[in-house]
Amino acid sequence: MKDQMELTPKAAREAIRNGEILKPTAGMCGGYAQGNLVILPKDLAYDFLLFAQRNPKPCPILEVLDAGEYCLRDCVKGGDIRTDIPKYRVYEHGVFKGEYTDIKSLWRDDLVSFVIGCSFTFESALIEAGIEVRHIEAKTNVPMYITNQFCKPAGFFSGPTVVSMRPIASKDLVRTIQITSRYPSVHGAPIHIGDPALIGIEDINRPDFGDSVEIKAGEIPVFWACGVTPQAVAMQSKPKLMITHSPGHMLITDIKNHELAVI
Amino acid sequence: MKDQMELTPKAAREAIRNGEILKPTAGMCGGYAQGNLVILPKDLAYDFLLFAQRNPKPCPILEVLDAGEYCLRDCVKGGDIRTDIPKYRVYEHGVFKGEYTDIKSLWRDDLVSFVIGCSFTFESALIEAGIEVRHIEAKTNVPMYITNQFCKPAGFFSGPTVVSMRPIASKDLVRTIQITSRYPSVHGAPIHIGDPALIGIEDINRPDFGDSVEIKAGEIPVFWACGVTPQAVAMQSKPKLMITHSPGHMLITDIKNHELAVI
Repeated sequence: MKDQMELTPKAAREAIRNGEILKPTAGMCGGYAQGNLVILPKDLAYDFLLFAQRNPKPCPILEVLDAGEYCLRDCVKGGDIRTDIPKYRVYEHGVFKGEYTDIKSLWRDDLVSFVIGCSFTFESALIEAGIEVRHIEAKTNVPMYITNQFCKPAGFFSGPTVVSMRPIASKDLVRTIQITSRYPSVHGAPIHIGDPALIGIEDINRPDFGDSVEIKAGEIPVFWACGVTPQAVAMQSKPKLMITHSPGHMLITDIKNHELAVI
Repeated sequence: MKDQMELTPKAAREAIRNGEILKPTAGMCGGYAQGNLVILPKDLAYDFLLFAQRNPKPCPILEVLDAGEYCLRDCVKGGDIRTDIPKYRVYEHGVFKGEYTDIKSLWRDDLVSFVIGCSFTFESALIEAGIEVRHIEAKTNVPMYITNQFCKPAGFFSGPTVVSMRPIASKDLVRTIQITSRYPSVHGAPIHIGDPALIGIEDINRPDFGDSVEIKAGEIPVFWACGVTPQAVAMQSKPKLMITHSPGHMLITDIKNHELAVI
């Protein structure tokens, strides 16, 4: 198989669909956006869509399929949301029920799929600008924290904002804010810079999800709203059924990262 | 009464609520964003929200209230959506039923209010940058056209994109695109520049809504997705009940125009 960074999104999804790729998608198909997935029954879809509308920084929606529909139209041409992600997770009433490489057998006519923007896009842009992204250098997961910043509730869904943190050198701070601001549909500008305690993070070295990273002298912790938020909030609300991608195993879209820049 | 440009949004809404202001809100409360209004019964709210999500350029949503709720929370602190707009229009099955200065007597527990971004914000930014906005100079309505660019449909709602047009001098074109791109929640960057025929406009001098404006030598027509789109589409779909603001009679919000800039 070709180097996975060089694969086209179509070829990568085909390999995923055929079970040839089962691993996390970070670094695959350079230049293309990847997406988080949340699938919910139709009777919860309005509340979830409203939650996303009210909280666009943690929940920037790239595409919503019609109920029962599994063919993607916008962010992927001709893909199948039931097979084109390397690993899915199924939750019932908030309880983890299992991991699957496809969800065809679980499909129902009332399921609504939400594809949600992912920070890989702005991380690529930072790296292209010569700004180090620590957890990528360290080959670990980005550290994520539950904050005291409550999302605006919407019906069934409420809960705190989860943030991801990247230490940024002071000299790169302005450019980092400028670059990430250009991408509102993949979390956009940071929501906090500096003292973690101000957003309710007690110990920066003990993230709630992902791995701790070193903050070097002269670096400032910078916090972005994180795509884990909608899943965490949905899980906490214990919907009777929720299907998500398995962490890191994303939907590779046909959208070029550059297409997501508003300016 | 104070000069209406100088009124605070709170004072303006109070005057509107008390029936002291019944006229279009253009030019009131300088520096603050204004919003379009669409109110629909709850059973159509999901389709409308999905339509907006799929068509963010014509339908940038600033706030959605819970069903039955009439107190605004985000874009206005403490306002009442039933009284704080100078003039409302009521449509039943797509037929105009009348104009009202408040809609308290029509209120129902199943009504969902959508506040939608308005181009006044980016027009202010253009004017501040010294770029002439022709219809404002001419004190007329912006010319609007139905295009051949179909919106992405969502359930009950489908129809063409309506655009507004502003002639821009070639020397100002780059800056105009940069400035308006900063405001994705009030229609953002233009969707077309140049030949009107390419988006299905037969006669630039005969707009479908609003007033024709002069295009001077050296100017290029620039087209933005227009907030009339969601109303036009909703009307065409003939919902059993839809309440909107009367054209030009907007909701004056507490959001500063600058807060809407993403960068």
